[in-house]
Amino acid sequence: MANTSATLDHLIDQFAKLPGIGRKTAYRLAYHVMQAPPDLARALAEAMIAVKEKIQFCSSCFNVTDDNPCPICRSTDRDHALVCAVEEPHDVLAFERAGAFQGVYHVLGGVFSPLDGIGPEELKIAELVARIKSDGIKEVIIATNPTAEGEMTAHYLAKVLKPLGVTITRIARGLPMGGDVEYADTNTVIRALEGRTEF
Amino acid sequence: MANTSATLDHLIDQFAKLPGIGRKTAYRLAYHVMQAPPDLARALAEAMIAVKEKIQFCSSCFNVTDDNPCPICRSTDRDHALVCAVEEPHDVLAFERAGAFQGVYHVLGGVFSPLDGIGPEELKIAELVARIKSDGIKEVIIATNPTAEGEMTAHYLAKVLKPLGVTITRIARGLPMGGDVEYADTNTVIRALEGRTEF
Repeated sequence: MANTSATLDHLIDQFAKLPGIGRKTAYRLAYHVMQAPPDLARALAEAMIAVKEKIQFCSSCFNVTDDNPCPICRSTDRDHALVCAVEEPHDVLAFERAGAFQGVYHVLGGVFSPLDGIGPEELKIAELVARIKSDGIKEVIIATNPTAEGEMTAHYLAKVLKPLGVTITRIARGLPMGGDVEYADTNTVIRALEGRTEF
Repeated sequence: MANTSATLDHLIDQFAKLPGIGRKTAYRLAYHVMQAPPDLARALAEAMIAVKEKIQFCSSCFNVTDDNPCPICRSTDRDHALVCAVEEPHDVLAFERAGAFQGVYHVLGGVFSPLDGIGPEELKIAELVARIKSDGIKEVIIATNPTAEGEMTAHYLAKVLKPLGVTITRIARGLPMGGDVEYADTNTVIRALEGRTEF
């Protein structure tokens, strides 16, 4: 059943196209936009257009950026010999939030996913190889997620990058801080044991 | 910590202003808009602007509409002597979806909420009184939600409208269809008993 306003129905349809937004949430959002001051709708509309027009990918690390190269690749305060290879731009955000990494990044743009037809060609792996050959990189930390796809991609990367003579490391996998051995899944416990370090 | 793109951060901020959208969801939406075809962002942006520009409130029932009066108030197939008073436009949608009501509506625009300063003056009650006096209305079904605020508003409405000589009814409250007496809350069970009808 349609609303008495086709314009409102249309906005609900548009919101419902976004990931994780069902019909009810789309209705709630559309209704909110309708009732909110015009500024809210305009600001959101303009921000969406701006994202499509202004954002580009850094030609060095392939992170999202307004200016190419991105602020991290341009920075002189960072260690450009240390590269952290991640799946997506939001992974960069997670590391930056932690504030414990002073190197630079390389955004692969995903992980292997045979069912979706994503293999080495679809990821920025050739570009990482080129960076290693030209930029004086000493260590690559592979920080893909500890999922089946992430591990598969990490193994492939290690195999491809090792012959280039750089140190290849993998982020540690184990019990999360604040976690509980009792409730950890079997694979995490196995990794925590395998990855144990000496006191 | 900010993204490497201020444009993306700005869109995340805008999404996060919507109700029920936290930072993580806002990020996911912004990231999706960034990666999706430009058409998606443009269509959503235009739909939002259109909602602010085109939608108005029906001068008779105060439902949202593109044309005033709304399609339901204009319809000659409906019983204009039977009015269903609801809280919000989405309540109209719920009744229309059920397809069991052939009268017209009156959207109150909310319910009493003393803490938010919403009393009789803030709702479209005077307008409902005026409709009853001029439009030949025979029955008003009060269909505010069965919440404390909805019941309070319903009681007030009944008190104000009864002297006008129209039949005032309240939608039935009881066990929902498919519900379970065992799991129903006490108030629902009490209402279900009080509202029992003879076979």
